[in-house]
Amino acid sequence: MNDAQRITGVLSPVVTPFKADLSPDPERFVRQCKWLLSQNVGLAVFGTNSEANSLSVDEKVALLEKLVSAGVDPSRMMPGTGHCAITDSVKLTAQAVKLGCAGVLMLPPFYYKGVSDEGLYRSFSEIVERVGEPRLRVYLYHIPPVAQVPITLGLVERLLKKYPGTVAGMKDSGGDWNNTKAFLDAYAKAGFDVFPGAETFLLQGMRNGGAGCISATANTNPGPIARLFETWRSADADAQQAKLDGIRQTFAKYPMIPALKAAIAHYGGDAAWSTVRPPLVELTPDQSRSLVSDLDARGFTMPGLR
Amino acid sequence: MNDAQRITGVLSPVVTPFKADLSPDPERFVRQCKWLLSQNVGLAVFGTNSEANSLSVDEKVALLEKLVSAGVDPSRMMPGTGHCAITDSVKLTAQAVKLGCAGVLMLPPFYYKGVSDEGLYRSFSEIVERVGEPRLRVYLYHIPPVAQVPITLGLVERLLKKYPGTVAGMKDSGGDWNNTKAFLDAYAKAGFDVFPGAETFLLQGMRNGGAGCISATANTNPGPIARLFETWRSADADAQQAKLDGIRQTFAKYPMIPALKAAIAHYGGDAAWSTVRPPLVELTPDQSRSLVSDLDARGFTMPGLR
Repeated sequence: MNDAQRITGVLSPVVTPFKADLSPDPERFVRQCKWLLSQNVGLAVFGTNSEANSLSVDEKVALLEKLVSAGVDPSRMMPGTGHCAITDSVKLTAQAVKLGCAGVLMLPPFYYKGVSDEGLYRSFSEIVERVGEPRLRVYLYHIPPVAQVPITLGLVERLLKKYPGTVAGMKDSGGDWNNTKAFLDAYAKAGFDVFPGAETFLLQGMRNGGAGCISATANTNPGPIARLFETWRSADADAQQAKLDGIRQTFAKYPMIPALKAAIAHYGGDAAWSTVRPPLVELTPDQSRSLVSDLDARGFTMPGLR
Repeated sequence: MNDAQRITGVLSPVVTPFKADLSPDPERFVRQCKWLLSQNVGLAVFGTNSEANSLSVDEKVALLEKLVSAGVDPSRMMPGTGHCAITDSVKLTAQAVKLGCAGVLMLPPFYYKGVSDEGLYRSFSEIVERVGEPRLRVYLYHIPPVAQVPITLGLVERLLKKYPGTVAGMKDSGGDWNNTKAFLDAYAKAGFDVFPGAETFLLQGMRNGGAGCISATANTNPGPIARLFETWRSADADAQQAKLDGIRQTFAKYPMIPALKAAIAHYGGDAAWSTVRPPLVELTPDQSRSLVSDLDARGFTMPGLR
């Protein structure tokens, strides 16, 4: 894979459908991924919003194999593969590379807190070395509000020096534009692709050398977000951004993952989509009605989903 | 298992030895567990201090099977079995019950933050129901500084009501005596066994209906901690506690897990023990020397280890 083939644009941390027995539902998952691709949105499956950390490695391997065997293009995939245990991260990462995924989005090991950059460097290094694939493209996943273990500028510098090309970029879900900007300023010109973790910073990101965004709400509002990525230099870009922000703020009034699933259930006419795995809890019927009412008032639709 | 056979006393979250290639070292693990049992300390293998969250489920299953096949008594074991994914927790918990372990110490799912008690209740319930073993004894693991997801009084109340007998107790590693006391006052008389998460609160705990303690430093100072548990009503109990506190404070000046391993490496004459898995980092040679010097000054020994 040369640099020209790097995955960029808008990616969705695809929400994972569950059956009534809480097992993953591969058929619904394939349909959802195909719909997202039809909206020009790539597939950051197994992200935070995918409830990926509520799935075992084997469950994720099975879903990934199912996607590829169902004809979903792996060059449009950036599965999340970072776990607390190196051995788990290696297993899923190696499988992703074998299946031809464009890259992997890698959480730091997130159980132990207050760990050093040296320890994180050793962790990522060990995974890269064990996978041992020149095709591997690693995107580091900075999400301190959830993982509580940050990816620092110094860590990226060390990893880029040791694994140029392999360490290909990052997702910044910290919600702090100054942090995103610091990474863009430091490494974007060297070919390190920075994806803000929400469309909130899509336009600002693109104006500062960003690679797109990876956003929860790309699950439900994919077309308009992808359109801003494609037309960010156009005169109406700020107006597009403002409209995207309104939709996002509506979702953000509710617990995000259950709200995304409630919207897919409603606009897709498929109630089964509302199921989440514990420790998450689905929206109450009142919350769902309120969400839909707010979204309808904004003219929100999910074309082609039903 | 009836209540008289409940596991109590001092338990060690046994540190996990690694080979140079970072794979678990089952032979050293068996020897360490047998030594701890010889010091009257039980085996809370796969705890936080065991680097359990840096091990895959399969690695833990293999180590547990190795312990039992090597003759280590499972009735003295309380393995940690809580993972982010219910499917992982069920797999390891079921195996622990099958092998005859006295109980399991269960972390809440710890990736998603700010989850509700309802979500945690569903998570623990789902695991108990899926394991479906009357012999199962669950000890809830409250360690907010690390897991960031607390076990509340209200959650325990709901779980005790639904699964009396099965939900058998908790480990409180919050480091807040008032919290430990609140659980003791509320549930100890109902047969809910509260283990403070350090020997710091062993004596206070026993005076308030506690069941013992589960402590990092029980890895290195097992005999004296177990002696206080056995003699807590004796006249010298406060003096014993003060001496234990001094040893613990010495370890607490360093990163705890690497420090425990450095002490075992030194006093056991086995340098391989100093290896940790990333994201942890072993002590520097200077730190190790300083730790040993401090411990020697306190008359610290590890009898029978070498």
